[in-house]
Amino acid sequence: MRFFSDNAATVHPAVLDALAAANTVDTAYDGDALSRSLDAAFSDLFETEVAAIWVTTGTAANALALAALCPPYGGVVCHHDAHVQNDECGAPEFYTHGAKLLLAGGTGAKLTPETIAKTIEAIADDVHRVQPHAISITNATEYGLVYRADEVAAIGALARDRGLGFHMDGARFANAVATTGASPADLTWRAGVDVLSFGFVKNGGMFAEALAFFRRDLVEATRIRRKRAGHLLSKGRFAAAQIRALLADDLWIANARAANRGAALLGAAAGARLIHPVEANEVFLRMTPAEAATLRAAGFEFYDWAAGEVRLVTSWDQPEDEVAALAAAIARL
Amino acid sequence: MRFFSDNAATVHPAVLDALAAANTVDTAYDGDALSRSLDAAFSDLFETEVAAIWVTTGTAANALALAALCPPYGGVVCHHDAHVQNDECGAPEFYTHGAKLLLAGGTGAKLTPETIAKTIEAIADDVHRVQPHAISITNATEYGLVYRADEVAAIGALARDRGLGFHMDGARFANAVATTGASPADLTWRAGVDVLSFGFVKNGGMFAEALAFFRRDLVEATRIRRKRAGHLLSKGRFAAAQIRALLADDLWIANARAANRGAALLGAAAGARLIHPVEANEVFLRMTPAEAATLRAAGFEFYDWAAGEVRLVTSWDQPEDEVAALAAAIARL
Amino acid sequence: MRFFSDNAATVHPAVLDALAAANTVDTAYDGDALSRSLDAAFSDLFETEVAAIWVTTGTAANALALAALCPPYGGVVCHHDAHVQNDECGAPEFYTHGAKLLLAGGTGAKLTPETIAKTIEAIADDVHRVQPHAISITNATEYGLVYRADEVAAIGALARDRGLGFHMDGARFANAVATTGASPADLTWRAGVDVLSFGFVKNGGMFAEALAFFRRDLVEATRIRRKRAGHLLSKGRFAAAQIRALLADDLWIANARAANRGAALLGAAAGARLIHPVEANEVFLRMTPAEAATLRAAGFEFYDWAAGEVRLVTSWDQPEDEVAALAAAIARL
Amino acid sequence: MRFFSDNAATVHPAVLDALAAANTVDTAYDGDALSRSLDAAFSDLFETEVAAIWVTTGTAANALALAALCPPYGGVVCHHDAHVQNDECGAPEFYTHGAKLLLAGGTGAKLTPETIAKTIEAIADDVHRVQPHAISITNATEYGLVYRADEVAAIGALARDRGLGFHMDGARFANAVATTGASPADLTWRAGVDVLSFGFVKNGGMFAEALAFFRRDLVEATRIRRKRAGHLLSKGRFAAAQIRALLADDLWIANARAANRGAALLGAAAGARLIHPVEANEVFLRMTPAEAATLRAAGFEFYDWAAGEVRLVTSWDQPEDEVAALAAAIARL
Repeated sequence: MRFFSDNAATVHPAVLDALAAANTVDTAYDGDALSRSLDAAFSDLFETEVAAIWVTTGTAANALALAALCPPYGGVVCHHDAHVQNDECGAPEFYTHGAKLLLAGGTGAKLTPETIAKTIEAIADDVHRVQPHAISITNATEYGLVYRADEVAAIGALARDRGLGFHMDGARFANAVATTGASPADLTWRAGVDVLSFGFVKNGGMFAEALAFFRRDLVEATRIRRKRAGHLLSKGRFAAAQIRALLADDLWIANARAANRGAALLGAAAGARLIHPVEANEVFLRMTPAEAATLRAAGFEFYDWAAGEVRLVTSWDQPEDEVAALAAAIARL
Repeated sequence: MRFFSDNAATVHPAVLDALAAANTVDTAYDGDALSRSLDAAFSDLFETEVAAIWVTTGTAANALALAALCPPYGGVVCHHDAHVQNDECGAPEFYTHGAKLLLAGGTGAKLTPETIAKTIEAIADDVHRVQPHAISITNATEYGLVYRADEVAAIGALARDRGLGFHMDGARFANAVATTGASPADLTWRAGVDVLSFGFVKNGGMFAEALAFFRRDLVEATRIRRKRAGHLLSKGRFAAAQIRALLADDLWIANARAANRGAALLGAAAGARLIHPVEANEVFLRMTPAEAATLRAAGFEFYDWAAGEVRLVTSWDQPEDEVAALAAAIARL
Repeated sequence: MRFFSDNAATVHPAVLDALAAANTVDTAYDGDALSRSLDAAFSDLFETEVAAIWVTTGTAANALALAALCPPYGGVVCHHDAHVQNDECGAPEFYTHGAKLLLAGGTGAKLTPETIAKTIEAIADDVHRVQPHAISITNATEYGLVYRADEVAAIGALARDRGLGFHMDGARFANAVATTGASPADLTWRAGVDVLSFGFVKNGGMFAEALAFFRRDLVEATRIRRKRAGHLLSKGRFAAAQIRALLADDLWIANARAANRGAALLGAAAGARLIHPVEANEVFLRMTPAEAATLRAAGFEFYDWAAGEVRLVTSWDQPEDEVAALAAAIARL
Repeated sequence: MRFFSDNAATVHPAVLDALAAANTVDTAYDGDALSRSLDAAFSDLFETEVAAIWVTTGTAANALALAALCPPYGGVVCHHDAHVQNDECGAPEFYTHGAKLLLAGGTGAKLTPETIAKTIEAIADDVHRVQPHAISITNATEYGLVYRADEVAAIGALARDRGLGFHMDGARFANAVATTGASPADLTWRAGVDVLSFGFVKNGGMFAEALAFFRRDLVEATRIRRKRAGHLLSKGRFAAAQIRALLADDLWIANARAANRGAALLGAAAGARLIHPVEANEVFLRMTPAEAATLRAAGFEFYDWAAGEVRLVTSWDQPEDEVAALAAAIARL
């Protein structure tokens, strides 16, 4: 019973069907009808004109977004626990040609206008220091918390005031939408977000994420960078097909709700063990090695996080009885 | 009737089946059983120990290979018509951090030891000039010619003598194997090749190419570069599954033969129009705009190549009657 | 008797005096009065508002200029014999983060609108090809020819029409001004040049070149890139002092005239041996190895250029009798 | 009366004399006799075979050293207050092509084996995290503390155990040698240092620093990187001349002692105001804005460091009476 990562989840049957359906001849790269349909699909979803492209991984999506917002000699403010800082093997530095991540704090990997301002204000405005050009937040965060629309907007206001770009790493954007109930628009561009990495792979997709540009002037250079990075699939229609399948009938929301439900159940069972509130599909618990071993002996797979801490991740495809079994096992500890 | 690119071909049903079969939970990234099986599969095929990883595009495969063989301040000798020079939007420069492509000549985009030596010998051995560190050839070439094993070996000998790395862009390696009848081993490591970009997407795959390292010491850094470039798919098993499906029962060879057969037919019909001998699945013809218009009016799609020249590309999935129809139409011109 | 490079020439006494005079405490980096005086000094010289900064080498000046005009994924059209292509060890690729030099032809390393257009028009306007963003010419050229103001303006018009930046490598700008008699303004911004690398080191300086921005919006990012490249000297006043010393009383023109005069004398003596007309301070001659050996035996130092070709370079500080002696020796061959 | 930076100090007369003496024709770049003498000069000084090259700034020296020790996808452990992290505008990231600085703590900007190990051990050994490849320390530190030979050796042992490169930023190496009384050898290669940035500009030079490679295998690629970065001066003899002048008769030590003496005097006067012990030529004091204003009104120039803190820097050329006057003024506050 797998609780170690939503990256290991299965692909939704609707996505497999969409791949099969896309297996006719169209044109190569992203000139096909499916790829060309993404702008309209995301514009509908976000209630504004959006330029949207597919990429194959969240790491590529984030790194391309930061390269669009920050010159090689600039910096991007992010949380010191951010995925772009810790889990992408320097992809932001590669794509931006050496821009610097400027680290800020905040509970549960959430930045606030105050923590961002503190980081920025410590940087003298001269040629010796790398100057901030953008802010990047993750929603839901690396610790399973969500930013509500007003929290995003407060950061967006700061970004606008200081002339900074604003990126949202939405590898689990679906989970954040499901939790907050906010519209995708309120959670992004209406709150000042310029570019969103919109995750599908953790949520039922196979190899497709989207980059949604609310600042559409940034998309042209990003298409070039995507090609230059070897991310322009020659059969791009299969990437677009997945995204369209998950957007259809709000399947992406349904999947996220399923994953969130599982986490909520585990969180409720965990009680005082909880390190962070459970707001998406991740659950961080205090747990002794002996306790963790007990759970593992019962067939539950998960990662240790730090000394005395474990991480549980739920997925769209998790059988309810497995989740219930884990919840019960935790309660029994 | 599509003759403009094998990139636009369909995916082989066996690949779709393999994707469906891989849709069970394993672990994430490339830790799954399918991904871990690639070393053995390619070692079998190449009759030597090979370290093999999947990537999603040929551009990424080539760029990663060159980055493994050439430092940022070095150069790579390639043909002035090479794909890495002309069709990858600077991906080699991106991945190598600015290494320089050192251009050489040769008929039909084929390098020879002589053309390579001429390029190298014009470079003074001092700190002002970018020094060569590797050679890259494409087999089959961008003009549909193939290097036979002895031709590769002659270049391999030069590479060894001069201490240069040796890369083969095998986006159409299958077609070269099918044409030459050489063993994969003879066409690569026995001829001195260090790294092979082994193409599957043009030959029935969906989004999986392989990088086969005969110099296995290069793979570890390449795994890191792959992650850093955002090419480490979180559900990598689906990439590995495609490769395994195409390697099974020599499906890759069968597909390449089908494509080559189509090109041979067109070539035979073209007679004196042929610009290059037809040795793989590409056919370059002299053709007036009026003649091209006639063919297009009959439903045949293809690209103009240069003034008075067109390119026809055949694919594994091309219906025989479409090929025959085009051959007849060309003969009638 | 040295004729191998103006790089090896001595430093003008006025420059040494200026260094001594600058040896008082001011502030660090480029905040000192001398550094801050450069904008005004170059604005006077060029009859327009110029933003000017010092750098220590021509390679750095050129590479910074190209980075200001071309994004990492773009290309710069230059001559295939250009210094930026052949003699800077990939500095343009380093500073631009991998932009591509797009090579064009032309007699004597001189580009023309026709040769530039031919290079550009061969590049399909799609995401697979590196697109041109700038043009770079060298005046005087690597073969000692000069562009006259109208020739620069013709290229400037093409740059403007196509939306390309325009850089002039003026490592020997002084020699070009001395030869053409054109005003610095006519030879640069009035002809469409955006950024000029203005050389001083070959012309009596010690370690100071200037970057003159006619597009002043480009200077701010360039100051940052200069620092990031480790080129912001902590005692910048000594760089500025050299430039001011050479600009004073048109010493730069006087020095260039002296060098040009020497080359003219050698050229006159060379007669039919001349490979290129002598228009600056370089002389390229056909010469057998035996003849070259004769000259070397007589104490003249110079470089072989190609088989049967030698290069002679004259400097501001060349004793007239040494030049006369070489001229006589050539005539005697 | 200047106490804001040793970067603004004057150039030692012996250096000016050396520049004048070097003003004869030799060959260009670093082929001249003076440049070629550096290996021997530093080998003598360090009692071992050293490969030494000049560069023009400490930023370039540090960035080249880190590029020699760390691949683009790697990381370098340094103090969070290190110059390479905070004051070089991302030069390490530029030269290394995006390597990451991995920050560690320690009092007074001094790393210890414990703080380094803590940073390293928090990094999971997988492809998602940037892995450490080198350690960089600054001696004397950014807060004017020195590492003694045994402290360096303890870090060197850790570097060796973990297979990491070891760089010392010695912008104020002279001050550290003067303070510790250790031999240059004991403070560097005998303690495991691979590459030293050896500063001369803050200590009487004009535009010359040295990179001393104890791992001589690293120098060849660094020479190439230096050229590619535009740092290969065409008249390199003038850089080498400065270094030789400062090494002669231990002038570099004498200058450092003079600067250290000034700082010691100020430190003694400061008493309880001292934030860090005074071990080199920098003095950090607690001081109210009103007190700072009093000193400035008396003609003393210096920088605020943080709220309620100021930094005083002494130089080799500081008149003793100015130092005494400042000491007295501080005592009077």
